Amino acid sequence: MEKELENVKRKKPLIHNITNYVTVNDVANVILAVGASPIMADDEKEVEEITSICNGLNINIGTLNERTIASMIKAGKKANQLNHPVLLDPVGAGASTLRTNTALKLLEEIHFTVIKGNISEIKTLAAHQGYTHGVDANENDIVNQNNLEDNIQFVKAYAKKMNAIIVVTGAIDLVSDDKQCYVIYNGEKEMSHITGTGCQLSGLITSYISSNDDQLKACAAAVCQMGLAGEIAKSHLATFEGNATYRNRIIDAIYHMTGKELEGGAQYEIQ
Amino acid sequence: MEKELENVKRKKPLIHNITNYVTVNDVANVILAVGASPIMADDEKEVEEITSICNGLNINIGTLNERTIASMIKAGKKANQLNHPVLLDPVGAGASTLRTNTALKLLEEIHFTVIKGNISEIKTLAAHQGYTHGVDANENDIVNQNNLEDNIQFVKAYAKKMNAIIVVTGAIDLVSDDKQCYVIYNGEKEMSHITGTGCQLSGLITSYISSNDDQLKACAAAVCQMGLAGEIAKSHLATFEGNATYRNRIIDAIYHMTGKELEGGAQYEIQ
Amino acid sequence: MEKELENVKRKKPLIHNITNYVTVNDVANVILAVGASPIMADDEKEVEEITSICNGLNINIGTLNERTIASMIKAGKKANQLNHPVLLDPVGAGASTLRTNTALKLLEEIHFTVIKGNISEIKTLAAHQGYTHGVDANENDIVNQNNLEDNIQFVKAYAKKMNAIIVVTGAIDLVSDDKQCYVIYNGEKEMSHITGTGCQLSGLITSYISSNDDQLKACAAAVCQMGLAGEIAKSHLATFEGNATYRNRIIDAIYHMTGKELEGGAQYEIQ
Repeated sequence: MEKELENVKRKKPLIHNITNYVTVNDVANVILAVGASPIMADDEKEVEEITSICNGLNINIGTLNERTIASMIKAGKKANQLNHPVLLDPVGAGASTLRTNTALKLLEEIHFTVIKGNISEIKTLAAHQGYTHGVDANENDIVNQNNLEDNIQFVKAYAKKMNAIIVVTGAIDLVSDDKQCYVIYNGEKEMSHITGTGCQLSGLITSYISSNDDQLKACAAAVCQMGLAGEIAKSHLATFEGNATYRNRIIDAIYHMTGKELEGGAQYEIQ
Repeated sequence: MEKELENVKRKKPLIHNITNYVTVNDVANVILAVGASPIMADDEKEVEEITSICNGLNINIGTLNERTIASMIKAGKKANQLNHPVLLDPVGAGASTLRTNTALKLLEEIHFTVIKGNISEIKTLAAHQGYTHGVDANENDIVNQNNLEDNIQFVKAYAKKMNAIIVVTGAIDLVSDDKQCYVIYNGEKEMSHITGTGCQLSGLITSYISSNDDQLKACAAAVCQMGLAGEIAKSHLATFEGNATYRNRIIDAIYHMTGKELEGGAQYEIQ
Repeated sequence: MEKELENVKRKKPLIHNITNYVTVNDVANVILAVGASPIMADDEKEVEEITSICNGLNINIGTLNERTIASMIKAGKKANQLNHPVLLDPVGAGASTLRTNTALKLLEEIHFTVIKGNISEIKTLAAHQGYTHGVDANENDIVNQNNLEDNIQFVKAYAKKMNAIIVVTGAIDLVSDDKQCYVIYNGEKEMSHITGTGCQLSGLITSYISSNDDQLKACAAAVCQMGLAGEIAKSHLATFEGNATYRNRIIDAIYHMTGKELEGGAQYEIQ
């Protein structure tokens, strides 16, 4: 995965983000840390123009509202026209009808290069789109060694249906197209005690897919880097440092990570 | 106060926050630090559904606008129906007519479990609600040893009138219902050099009252924990570290604090 | 520049910010760090009242939308009536028609004490206002020793046209009125790897011009302080610390800097 990270650093893609106001600052800083550049713009009157000067688009529905939903659709359609990679992070799909329906509408109107969420969000979307095999989207769905085969089958099928790369985050992460699934073991459980590591990952993935031809491997590299950064950052924490400092140290670790280090630290298998 | 904190950690309540975009990230991280979970959602179309799946609601008018005011009212009414605890942080009441009137309207339409602000904000609200004893809301009102008795009398009376717990923050904090007032001495003056420690406290208090039956003591425990975290965090600062690092260290201190440590460090008397 | 910083600390001005949601938290913390106080408020119904109780106004179009543009105009006009200093940070002027036109409209409706941006933003505005000498606004415009004289001439002319202080940020910063231009050499290139150092600087400058009579020198002092803070902060970074920690350390350095230290560390010449 050395090449995938080095490509980001060399190409310095400009990433258009329509994302939530909770974690937006960390998303901007992590995109800078990996060597790309962020632009945040969500007004309907400018999103097409902004996305046109960018290399990729990151849509995150974390604090959606009527105004920004319209902007997401406009920006996504424009990015599709321009063949820019587009990522969807359907934060909270399943938690409210508005979020579920918005995610479904976005999937209908826009072709996404990557759909990225936790297992609950992804299964919610799949269920509404007619995928009816084991889509309860509850704690039992969390990917583990016992249900790994089932989940790999699921993400491959959903990737095929959506003609997209599916990224499912959790203790074990899955990054899959219809043929190959990266099963990724990097990361630390304490990363879930920080708000926005998922949103940051979406910014990272968009940076990678905007800089690489092999987009599946690029996605997998981004997911490995986020997890590996969590491992490195944890090793630097003093005993009194908690989730707020950990948040900064993870971005710091991304900032310093070379392609070689990522290659050496990435823990995955392909199935 | 050991039990109150341990209850938060054990019950891991889900807290719905409609809060300002200035300090929202820190509010999310402090809620995670104490062991609860945050959801931020402010669109009118989803706030009722979101608050229904949560255990408590935190309303903060810090960067209010027409759109979010409507959402606050809808969410608050729903939370009342469901008997969820609801907190109001009337940030800037008294600084603009919009803020004062919005806070008053919220108090009219919603029953709040806790109303929490600085002395100026609380006295502004009380004055508009017909409480006419010493409500100038200026520097002379800041709670100190000289006016402590008067202020305790005031918060008890206002708590009775509002059928709510009143939390007044300052160098000395007051947490009161109509009968008992916790007078709390934890905290450091440098905490006022960080944006959002007040907003963070509102997130903490909502986490506590959503996990405990004795809500007065729960509020007092949250206030003690915030102040104690400020004391612990200050002890870890290098000489060149200032308000930005201090912000992180306070959240870190909350992350590591046990119920026993809170019990040992809390400094208060009940009047 | 000792006096200029000490005046901020002594006068503790209240600064009204209508700014983007990406970097707003850092803007608030840096304003607190320098000894001033921030208020963020962007609703049309309250901005005039809020700006009336403040000492200065900071308008940043970073994540503008229809709602906030109307508020910027109202607040700016009110600040003009009250003779409060007003700063414009035209983030992204040139990147979209909405941003360019909004910045131009603001310049038409409001008199700004300071217009502050990178060379590309400033030249975009100047070009649309009929300034046609070398306004390509691309990489060749970045201020360096070779084009320094031309750029100084440009900012002096634009300052005269706008009856404002022009601040151009970059590796070399320019702070100019129609007669004198401060050429400032403080700063580190890694500051561009952090989101929002420019927005923070706008908050700082507004704090300075709201506390000082010699506004040109006040602007220059703010720019020197931001750069010097970047130098000090860099010296405190551990090898594994990156852009996220650097962000905090810069605000920390502002928090601790005295007027005497600023005077000693400021690197500039006047042309």
